[in-house]
Amino acid sequence: MKNYVSSALAGAAMALALCPLPALAAGVIDNVNGIALDANGAIVHFGALLIDDDGKVEKLIQGRYKEPEYKRPKKRKKGEPWPEPPKGLAFKLDAGGKTLIPGLIDAHGHVMGMGLSLITLDLSDTRSLAQAQEKIRAYVAANPGRKWIIGTGWNQEQWGLGRFPTAAELDAAVGDIPVWLERIDGHAGWANSAAIRAAGVTAATKAPAGGRIEMASGKPAGVFVDKAMDLVQKVVPPPAPKDRDLALEKAQRALLSMGITGIADMGTSIEDWQAFRRSADRGALRVRIMSYAAGLDNMVLIAGPEPTPWLYDDHLRMGGIKLLLDGALGSRGAWLKADYADAPGQRGLNMIPGTPLRNIMSRAAMDNFQVAVHAIGDAANGEILDAVEELGDTYKGDRRWRIEHAQIVDPADLPRFGRLGVVASMQPVHLASDWRMAMARMGEARLQGAYAWKAMLDNRVPLAFGSDVPVESANPFPGIAVAMTRQDAQGEPVGGWMPQQRVSFQAALDGFTRQAAYAGFAEKKFGSLIPGQRADFLLIDRDISSAQPADIRATQVLETWIGGKRVYVKGQ
Amino acid sequence: MKNYVSSALAGAAMALALCPLPALAAGVIDNVNGIALDANGAIVHFGALLIDDDGKVEKLIQGRYKEPEYKRPKKRKKGEPWPEPPKGLAFKLDAGGKTLIPGLIDAHGHVMGMGLSLITLDLSDTRSLAQAQEKIRAYVAANPGRKWIIGTGWNQEQWGLGRFPTAAELDAAVGDIPVWLERIDGHAGWANSAAIRAAGVTAATKAPAGGRIEMASGKPAGVFVDKAMDLVQKVVPPPAPKDRDLALEKAQRALLSMGITGIADMGTSIEDWQAFRRSADRGALRVRIMSYAAGLDNMVLIAGPEPTPWLYDDHLRMGGIKLLLDGALGSRGAWLKADYADAPGQRGLNMIPGTPLRNIMSRAAMDNFQVAVHAIGDAANGEILDAVEELGDTYKGDRRWRIEHAQIVDPADLPRFGRLGVVASMQPVHLASDWRMAMARMGEARLQGAYAWKAMLDNRVPLAFGSDVPVESANPFPGIAVAMTRQDAQGEPVGGWMPQQRVSFQAALDGFTRQAAYAGFAEKKFGSLIPGQRADFLLIDRDISSAQPADIRATQVLETWIGGKRVYVKGQ
Repeated sequence: MKNYVSSALAGAAMALALCPLPALAAGVIDNVNGIALDANGAIVHFGALLIDDDGKVEKLIQGRYKEPEYKRPKKRKKGEPWPEPPKGLAFKLDAGGKTLIPGLIDAHGHVMGMGLSLITLDLSDTRSLAQAQEKIRAYVAANPGRKWIIGTGWNQEQWGLGRFPTAAELDAAVGDIPVWLERIDGHAGWANSAAIRAAGVTAATKAPAGGRIEMASGKPAGVFVDKAMDLVQKVVPPPAPKDRDLALEKAQRALLSMGITGIADMGTSIEDWQAFRRSADRGALRVRIMSYAAGLDNMVLIAGPEPTPWLYDDHLRMGGIKLLLDGALGSRGAWLKADYADAPGQRGLNMIPGTPLRNIMSRAAMDNFQVAVHAIGDAANGEILDAVEELGDTYKGDRRWRIEHAQIVDPADLPRFGRLGVVASMQPVHLASDWRMAMARMGEARLQGAYAWKAMLDNRVPLAFGSDVPVESANPFPGIAVAMTRQDAQGEPVGGWMPQQRVSFQAALDGFTRQAAYAGFAEKKFGSLIPGQRADFLLIDRDISSAQPADIRATQVLETWIGGKRVYVKGQ
Repeated sequence: MKNYVSSALAGAAMALALCPLPALAAGVIDNVNGIALDANGAIVHFGALLIDDDGKVEKLIQGRYKEPEYKRPKKRKKGEPWPEPPKGLAFKLDAGGKTLIPGLIDAHGHVMGMGLSLITLDLSDTRSLAQAQEKIRAYVAANPGRKWIIGTGWNQEQWGLGRFPTAAELDAAVGDIPVWLERIDGHAGWANSAAIRAAGVTAATKAPAGGRIEMASGKPAGVFVDKAMDLVQKVVPPPAPKDRDLALEKAQRALLSMGITGIADMGTSIEDWQAFRRSADRGALRVRIMSYAAGLDNMVLIAGPEPTPWLYDDHLRMGGIKLLLDGALGSRGAWLKADYADAPGQRGLNMIPGTPLRNIMSRAAMDNFQVAVHAIGDAANGEILDAVEELGDTYKGDRRWRIEHAQIVDPADLPRFGRLGVVASMQPVHLASDWRMAMARMGEARLQGAYAWKAMLDNRVPLAFGSDVPVESANPFPGIAVAMTRQDAQGEPVGGWMPQQRVSFQAALDGFTRQAAYAGFAEKKFGSLIPGQRADFLLIDRDISSAQPADIRATQVLETWIGGKRVYVKGQ
C-alpha cells in the first residue's frame, strides 16, 4: 500500500530524533546456589537464571551473570541493517547466594477441598476425642448463626480411640445445630443426631452399594462410611460461590507459601472449575492447575468434546478424568485380594464393577482424555492394570494411564506398571501417617509391595509425587524427606519402614517436579528449569541437595516465582 | 538499577542505526457513505472511519481521509524530545462510496437455539401439513441412524389448519422413530406416538402447572403446551458438546452474514455458556454476546457471586437473568387480564406466582444482576411493572429492569414503563407474523397498547429492538422496515396495522444499535460508532437512510467488521 510505504520511509527519516529505547523486559536472578534437573533427570547446578520476555527460562548460567559486551562493528554490508544491541534487562536480582530450585508440583491434591477446609472447622490437630469436642464447642461459639457446622480432619486412630466416635459424643458438644464432620481421609463422615434427623436417616435406612452405616444397638451410630456419606452429604447446604472464591484464594496463598507452583486437581466439579475460571478471569490465578474431572458428567460439561487447551498462559487445563475404584485403608474401604487382618470377612469396597469401569475408561479415552483412577488396595490396583491391559489395544499412543495412590500393590503386579507405561501417582507423606495402621490392617507379610517407590523406579515406572491435600498437608518438603527415609516426623521407625524402598534426593525431587509435570502432560510447559519452560522457581533457606532429610523437612520457602514473576515473599 | 541505565544509554547511542520503524496498526475505511448515531441518537453522516490500534473507533471524518502532514520543526526546546511523527496506517480501505453503518445488535435472541435449529429439521418454510409431513419424511431418509428426530418451526396458523396437528398425522410421516417438533414460538411441542410412548405419557398423565396436554377422545392428542413440553423434552437426548460447537459456529456465520455483531442471549444454560467459552478460548467467538442466565441455578453456577466482567475483549459477559412469566399468544399461553376472545374461560398461563417472582427478582438484584422478564400478555406486563415498583425502593440505582416482548400492554400501564425506567425489549417482526392472530385472540379494542412502539418512545421508554431468533429470522433489516411500516413482507395490511405506532428510520436504527447496547449495559463498549467504542460496523449495498422501507427490507450485507477486523465478506 502506497500509504504504508510513504509513512514507513517518513519513520526511517525521523529515526535519529524519534527512536524509542529498546524494549526492556527480560531479567536475571543472579548469585544463586541453583539446583535443577536436566532433560534426563540428572541434577545440575548453576549460578544465575536468565528469564526471557515471556517469563520463560532463557538460560541457566554457570557462575555469575555477565552483562554481554557489545561492540558496534566499523562497517556493515550495503543495504544490511546494523546488528541489534544487547537487550537491556527489566530487572536484575542479586539473591546473595541463596538456594534456587524449580517450583514444586503436587501430582495429586484437591484444591477446593483444601481451600474449603481452610475456612471450615479443622480437627486434624486434635489428639483426643475430648480435645475434639472442646474445639467443636469453641468453633460454634466463634461462628454464631451458622445453619450447619461443617468440618474435617478427625482421625480416631490419632485419638487412640480404637473405634469410631458416636453421634451421642458429638451431641455432647453441639446438640441443637446439625454437625457433619468428614474423617481426615474423606472416606467417612461423623454426624450428630440433629444431622441424622435432617438427613432423614433411621434404623430402617439401608446403606447404598459401596457404603456402610455404622450401627449401635440397631440404630445409626453416627459414622457413615464411603458411599453412605451421601445420605447426609446431600442435605448439607453447598458452599456459595463467594465462599468458594475465598477458599480458592486461601488455598493458593497456602500453596505458594509452601513452594507449590503447580498442582493436579483430582476430581474437579463444575463448581470448582467455575471458581478457577473466575479467579483466572480477574488475573488472580497464580498456581498452575492440571484439572481432572470428577466423573464423566463433569468431564463432558466442563471440557466438552476433548481436553481443553492450556488456558491463561499455561495456568489451567482440564486434560483428564478422575475415577474412584475403592476406598481408603483407614476406614477399611481399600479393596484387598484377601481379608483385612483385623476384620475377617471384610475385603473393602469395589466402587465400580468391571464392565462399567471399562466403559467409563473407554468413553474418556475415546475423546483423548487422560484417565486417573484412585486405587489403594492390591485388588483395586490389579483391576486397573487388567483394564489398562485390555483397553491398550484399542487406545494406542501416549495415554499415560494413571493410578492414584497405588499404595498396596501385589509384588507380582509391580512390573506390569512399567510394561503398560502406567504412571504411579503416590504420596510419600501417607506412609508416615499410615505405616502403623497398615501393619494392623494387613500384617507385614502382605505389605511387600506397599508404598513401593524404589521398586516402581526399578521397574521403570514414571513415579510422580504429591500430598493428597487436604488429607495431608501440601508441604512438599516433608514429602521429600519421607521419600528418602520412610520415617515419620518423629523419626520412627528407626532406620525407616521397609527401608529397601527408600529413594534418593534426586528421585524425590524428580517426583515433585519433572515426573509430576509428565504425569499431567505438562513436561513441555513447566516442571523443571529447562530453557523454554515457564520460569517457575523458589528461593529457599537451605541447600536441600546436601542437607540431611530432617533438615530438608524443615525447609522454609523465602520467595515463590511463577512465570518469571514474584508471587510470594516470606513474611509479606 | 545501574544495569538498566547503562543499557538504556547504549540504546539511545545506537539510535540512528538501530531504530525500528514505528508500530503500524491503525487503519482507515475511506470513501464511505457513513451513517451513524451520535451520543444523543441523532443521525450523523461521515466520509471515512479511522480505527485505532485496539480496534476501536478513533474518529469519524467528514469528507475523505487525508494523510496528516508532518513538518519536522527546525529546533526544539533544550532537553525536550522532538514531537512524534504521524503514525503509519496498518491498512487503508477505499470503500468506493459504499454505505457504512454501525454493526447491528439483536436485543433478544437465543444463540444456541438458533444454531441447533440450523442443524436440525426446520419446518418454518412449510405452508401446509402435507408439505410438513413430506419434509419430515425426506429429513429422516437423509439422516439415517438417528435415535430421535428433532425439529422446530411448525406453525398450524401458517398451514391454515385452524387447529393443532396430531400424533397420528406425525405417525403417518414417521412411525418407528420417536419424533419431537417444537412449534415456531417454542411454546408447544408436537410428538408422534413413539415419542409419547418413550416419554411414558398416557391418558392418565396430568399436565404440570403452567402446562397443558392437548387431548383427543380422552388420549394425548400429540401436542404439549408450555410446561407440559417438559414431559417429552426430558427424555429427548441432549445435544453432544461437538453438536453444540457446530451449532454455535453456524449461528455465528448466519448472524455475521445478516449484519448482527452483538446479541443478547436470552436464557443461557451452563451448556450454552461452556460452548461460548470453548469458542472464545480458541479465538473463534466473533459475535459479542450479552448473556442472561436461564433462571437462578444457571446464574449462580455460571457467573457466581456477581455478573462476570467483560471477557475476551468485550465479546462475552453474563450480566443478568432471564425469567419467563407467561407463554405466547399463538398457543394461548400469554397471560391476559380478560378471557381470550376466541377461547372463553381461558386467560393463559402465569408461570411464576407473585411471591416467588419477587423473591427470584430480589435474589438476582441483590447481587447486582440485571433482571429480564418475558411478558407477552397485558396481565403479565402489569404484574412485572407492579413487582418492579415494589422492589424499586430496595434496589436503587441504575437497574435497567427489562420486559422482554412487552407485546400486549394495557394502555394504562404504558406510562409506568417510562416512570420506572423499565426497558422495553421488543421484536418488530413479531408484529408481521402475529397481527392477524392477535386480532383473532383479543379483538382490536383490546389491542390499543399492542406492539406500541411509538407510545413507548412518547413515554420516554428505552426501546431496544431484536428478533427473538430462532422464533423469527435474525435478519434485522426486515425488522427495521416493519418498525417503520407495521406491514408484513406482503405489504399487508395496507397503510400498516395501527399505523399510529410506526416509528422513524432513526428510531428503528437506534433500537437495533444504541438502545440494544444500553439495554445490556454495553453502551460504553459498542452499539454506535462514537469514538472509543469498538469498531463494529457493516458495509451494505444501499443507503438505508434514504431508501423506502421495502428496499431497506432487502438490504444485503457486503462486509461485517468487528473490533476493526473484517469477519465476513459476502460471497466468501
